[in-house]
Amino acid sequence: MSLLPPQIQRTIEEFSKLPGIGPKSAERLTFHLLRSSKARPDRLGQTLLDLKHELKYCTQCQMITLQDECAICLDPSRDHATILVVEDPLEVVAFEKTSYRGVYHVLHGVLSPIDGMGPEQLRMKELVERAKTGTTNEVIIATNPDVEGEATASYIHLQLEGTVPKITRLAHGLPMGADIEFADQVTLREALAGRRSL
Amino acid sequence: MSLLPPQIQRTIEEFSKLPGIGPKSAERLTFHLLRSSKARPDRLGQTLLDLKHELKYCTQCQMITLQDECAICLDPSRDHATILVVEDPLEVVAFEKTSYRGVYHVLHGVLSPIDGMGPEQLRMKELVERAKTGTTNEVIIATNPDVEGEATASYIHLQLEGTVPKITRLAHGLPMGADIEFADQVTLREALAGRRSL
Repeated sequence: MSLLPPQIQRTIEEFSKLPGIGPKSAERLTFHLLRSSKARPDRLGQTLLDLKHELKYCTQCQMITLQDECAICLDPSRDHATILVVEDPLEVVAFEKTSYRGVYHVLHGVLSPIDGMGPEQLRMKELVERAKTGTTNEVIIATNPDVEGEATASYIHLQLEGTVPKITRLAHGLPMGADIEFADQVTLREALAGRRSL
Repeated sequence: MSLLPPQIQRTIEEFSKLPGIGPKSAERLTFHLLRSSKARPDRLGQTLLDLKHELKYCTQCQMITLQDECAICLDPSRDHATILVVEDPLEVVAFEKTSYRGVYHVLHGVLSPIDGMGPEQLRMKELVERAKTGTTNEVIIATNPDVEGEATASYIHLQLEGTVPKITRLAHGLPMGADIEFADQVTLREALAGRRSL
């Protein structure tokens, strides 16, 4: 590859370090940007240099924000006694499209010993402290329904038991539009166990 | 999405403009870089800002280079009477892994009226001028075996006919390691037509 100028090689290398982008895709992306006007790679480059600039975590919910507290935590019309615990900031964005009107707590990850993620790596301490203030009525645990998410949910439950009146977990069951024929057995079992009277 | 700080949104937008990267992948890439150390997005950002810096096209073969002429065109040990015509600089890299010892001509694209790519958008004029100098013995057309590549090959053939003693096209046929059972009929027909005596 020494045929290509070093900045092209470097771009290919940096792209191929990203998750889901192999060496071939990295080449394709680099040459796409090479063929486009100079403004394109410059814009993406500048945006990446700015990415972590002045980012803070909300002192309340640990959401990524530019202020000390995020817009949701500062909003007096929200129900501050209900805390929805999520793994990632993007999940806050997802729940904001629903009619949920409580507040959030972003863990920034899940328990995963294999990736070196213990309770200290997550914003777990901050959650326990928030719960201890006694103003919280309900903590809804909305970690993903996978092994790490379930383990994290159990851990949070153990940590908060006794300090919060109500600890709940998102319902498991069939997603809307799913085909029962193709649903896996764990989902079907959960859907049966969680059935509701009409 | 106004919940996320503007630089995060901008990064997601810029990533999703790249080919093969949808909005979900763009979010995943952005949050991957957010979670990593500050050096990671900075390195990719700086590399993109440098990408087009000081890049030139070789005055002979139109390969991307930092000098006026590329290392291959400057090499006196190469066969300068044989020109291999490719679509892209990456294809030069691919052929350099073979035992090919001639020189190249990079078109920087193929004829594709639907994408607004006519002969003027390609480095076609430069190829015709090189051929006219009379020092060229053979032009090997190595555009891809697809509709645009075949059309481009025919066009080059028409342009160079009479000025170059020999115009050839890469062989079509079964790729090494292929399974005849699964080969498409066009490839099989080409493989039959191009059969060689042993």
